[in-house]
Amino acid sequence: MTSAVRLFAENGYHATGIEMISHDTGIGRGALYHHIGSKETLLFEICHTRLSDLLTQSGRIVAAEAAHQERFRQLMRSTMRNLAEHALEWTVAFQEFKALTGQRRAVIQDARDRYEAMVAGILRDGAGAGEFRELDPLVVKGILGHFNYSYAWIRPDGERTPEEIADLFTDTVLNGVLREPR
Amino acid sequence: MTSAVRLFAENGYHATGIEMISHDTGIGRGALYHHIGSKETLLFEICHTRLSDLLTQSGRIVAAEAAHQERFRQLMRSTMRNLAEHALEWTVAFQEFKALTGQRRAVIQDARDRYEAMVAGILRDGAGAGEFRELDPLVVKGILGHFNYSYAWIRPDGERTPEEIADLFTDTVLNGVLREPR
Repeated sequence: MTSAVRLFAENGYHATGIEMISHDTGIGRGALYHHIGSKETLLFEICHTRLSDLLTQSGRIVAAEAAHQERFRQLMRSTMRNLAEHALEWTVAFQEFKALTGQRRAVIQDARDRYEAMVAGILRDGAGAGEFRELDPLVVKGILGHFNYSYAWIRPDGERTPEEIADLFTDTVLNGVLREPR
Repeated sequence: MTSAVRLFAENGYHATGIEMISHDTGIGRGALYHHIGSKETLLFEICHTRLSDLLTQSGRIVAAEAAHQERFRQLMRSTMRNLAEHALEWTVAFQEFKALTGQRRAVIQDARDRYEAMVAGILRDGAGAGEFRELDPLVVKGILGHFNYSYAWIRPDGERTPEEIADLFTDTVLNGVLREPR
């Protein structure tokens, strides 16, 4: 899978043939087909592994008894660590998942929706509890971009840890950049 | 160029051959080579046109005499309108620009850096003027993702205008989501 991840991330899904994966791994095409089925199965597995992992970690954090801002912070720390440690896989998952078709596409879209719903749920619960402002539901889209788009540059061994970066971004989203917010 | 944008966005740069563009446009390969030079020239032109346009509009806004939060708001309105009206071009520019090499890659990277520097400049000036909090320079990366990642879903004819969405996101970034920011 490591080989497919790298080839998909570097060349794009459509430009990567099974024969390239075969050449890169030294596994024959026949054996590849036998073990993984198809190129689309590989893409699905990459997306599915990342999102399942993210949803498991996130589900635990979201279910915790804690202030809504603290759940938000922990969720974003966990997300950024995941993005940083699997940046290539996430590049493939974000940029290539639309190449999936039928049931595979539906499963991945559903997993993405469930993650988005977790973030939206914290914002809604926090507003209901008076901890957050009343927020337009679309606000979640911006917040997802704030954290998720870091797949393009974040690395686990950077100058700051993923958790430090998550905290910086969380502070911006929670408190705003204005010295005296309205 | 419309044809190349669509093919690059749908299939990825590496999977799109000049013969596909030739077939799609009905322009012969010879004529295509004569007019555009190479596939990489096409990719460069797509990225360069978008970024030049964005930098021209942004430069005007950034140079205006206005409160820093107002300059920020206008910059983001303009950015979101640009992203929405050219969503496919931006998909190519964001996802494929790393396929550029040498001088072409350097020119596009420089343009991206200049846009980032404009946003960072507003944050720095605003903090210097006491309008914004003192912010870690890395904060700009999250803010760029907050707005720019919308290339993946924003459209000019959506239920909300790009400017309305920009305002929602700007309110989040300026004021934060906490009812009582620290």
